[in-house]
Amino acid sequence: MNSSRKLKPSDFSRRDYTYWQQVSTRWVDNDVYGHINNAVYFSYIDSVVNQFLIEYQLLDLEKSEVIGVVAQSQCRFFQSLSYPGVVDCGLRVRHLGKTSVSYEVGMFEQDKEAVAAVGGFTHVFVDRSQHRPRPLSELMRSAFSTLA
Amino acid sequence: MNSSRKLKPSDFSRRDYTYWQQVSTRWVDNDVYGHINNAVYFSYIDSVVNQFLIEYQLLDLEKSEVIGVVAQSQCRFFQSLSYPGVVDCGLRVRHLGKTSVSYEVGMFEQDKEAVAAVGGFTHVFVDRSQHRPRPLSELMRSAFSTLA
Amino acid sequence: MNSSRKLKPSDFSRRDYTYWQQVSTRWVDNDVYGHINNAVYFSYIDSVVNQFLIEYQLLDLEKSEVIGVVAQSQCRFFQSLSYPGVVDCGLRVRHLGKTSVSYEVGMFEQDKEAVAAVGGFTHVFVDRSQHRPRPLSELMRSAFSTLA
Amino acid sequence: MNSSRKLKPSDFSRRDYTYWQQVSTRWVDNDVYGHINNAVYFSYIDSVVNQFLIEYQLLDLEKSEVIGVVAQSQCRFFQSLSYPGVVDCGLRVRHLGKTSVSYEVGMFEQDKEAVAAVGGFTHVFVDRSQHRPRPLSELMRSAFSTLA
Repeated sequence: MNSSRKLKPSDFSRRDYTYWQQVSTRWVDNDVYGHINNAVYFSYIDSVVNQFLIEYQLLDLEKSEVIGVVAQSQCRFFQSLSYPGVVDCGLRVRHLGKTSVSYEVGMFEQDKEAVAAVGGFTHVFVDRSQHRPRPLSELMRSAFSTLA
Repeated sequence: MNSSRKLKPSDFSRRDYTYWQQVSTRWVDNDVYGHINNAVYFSYIDSVVNQFLIEYQLLDLEKSEVIGVVAQSQCRFFQSLSYPGVVDCGLRVRHLGKTSVSYEVGMFEQDKEAVAAVGGFTHVFVDRSQHRPRPLSELMRSAFSTLA
Repeated sequence: MNSSRKLKPSDFSRRDYTYWQQVSTRWVDNDVYGHINNAVYFSYIDSVVNQFLIEYQLLDLEKSEVIGVVAQSQCRFFQSLSYPGVVDCGLRVRHLGKTSVSYEVGMFEQDKEAVAAVGGFTHVFVDRSQHRPRPLSELMRSAFSTLA
Repeated sequence: MNSSRKLKPSDFSRRDYTYWQQVSTRWVDNDVYGHINNAVYFSYIDSVVNQFLIEYQLLDLEKSEVIGVVAQSQCRFFQSLSYPGVVDCGLRVRHLGKTSVSYEVGMFEQDKEAVAAVGGFTHVFVDRSQHRPRPLSELMRSAFSTLA
């Protein structure tokens, strides 16, 4: 997402995303105003991204020598979401660098067309022990390109 | 749950529960050992209970004059669960008092027969402003008895 | 805590606890009723316990071969707490077994004498890889006895 | 924060911030890699901001007719933080609009000079029932200008 221009919900569509997951909201997600707390959206985002990585065997929580470290993250909130209910989360890749990838997750209320929030983050891939950047593997590059 | 005796997983079965919900685990649920943190199970439990209350129109988050306040809670952990994945949560009522109800939630890994954890809590129903106990309505009593 | 008898706030006093930590509440801790969500108390409890273990060098998150696994937990809620504010958490040991220890944490609003909530859990110590119970070390036994 | 240029930790200093709060980390904040999860930083950020609003009597959780709704948020992560420990959070105002304010929170490990993470969000002030934007009150404008 380019933050230099004012983004509108109509800039995003369910058709923009090919990989989907459903996140079930929780009672504790709601804040005192009865809406999902802003920090909680980021826990949806990294659950979706990491599940993609695990499904595509790009990440093994216990054994992978290369792990993704979050360098920056951002989210834009258009329409509040609330527990109870399920959030449809669509994932795409916005930028593919030499050692990093930037994901975008569109979050939609179930059966609604208009996007509720759009967020994402940049993963820098590093070796687990020293945290030095590592080039993306061919496997990663290939998997991420299916999300571009 | 009676805590005076040592409970075993075989004391609980999927057949004990008639009302079910699925909770999707999140990346942040895992602790440093790679298992769902013990506190997080309680967020599953009260999500399931409150969704039941809302579905059966026993609770309206904004308007209900009588709300449930948690008086005590407990959980027994038999087998660790982990993100990613979905937790099957079965709900039943263990005790129905004059102003309170005690719920039990059995938590199972998807497609597994053995219970992973069993927890629950006691809701005391009180008026929203003064927090004074109120007798269960007939509607509540009837809905809870379907879970007994 | 023995759950077979009805516990009252007056059964607990700040003087019962010798080890103390302060937990700062968070905006997201409050639920829709404006009170700390019941699941969140358990995140206070295991933060206090694990910090004790780390301070007394009984646990090294990365290197310890023996780790504590939560077997059961429970909490009793007497008085609701809310963000903003700090919670004074007192820790004591309720039972010391061969391979396990049961902690109790009394939670108090700052500058208040009456206890707000009392909870705890049982840690079974196991080897990290196989999760088989291991007897408490002398170091542990000695540290825990200062909290009894 | 302007995201169009690559920000460095040296762009931020403890002297940039006049309003401070300490957040105690929690066991559950750590992810499987032993570092505070990225979503959790946002729960620090909005705890600090809302506590400021409450302290300066700009927000009453129960009674305020005008509340702040988060329109966008972002964070940049320079150095990982971990439980146990305390995070020093400094708050300043980055932009003051007609109906909105953009906060920045610098997060520092205790007794460290280098910033660990810098994040923030934009609050749009709206009436509680209809969520229509409302101009900042003079009280708000005056309080926020002390943080500019």
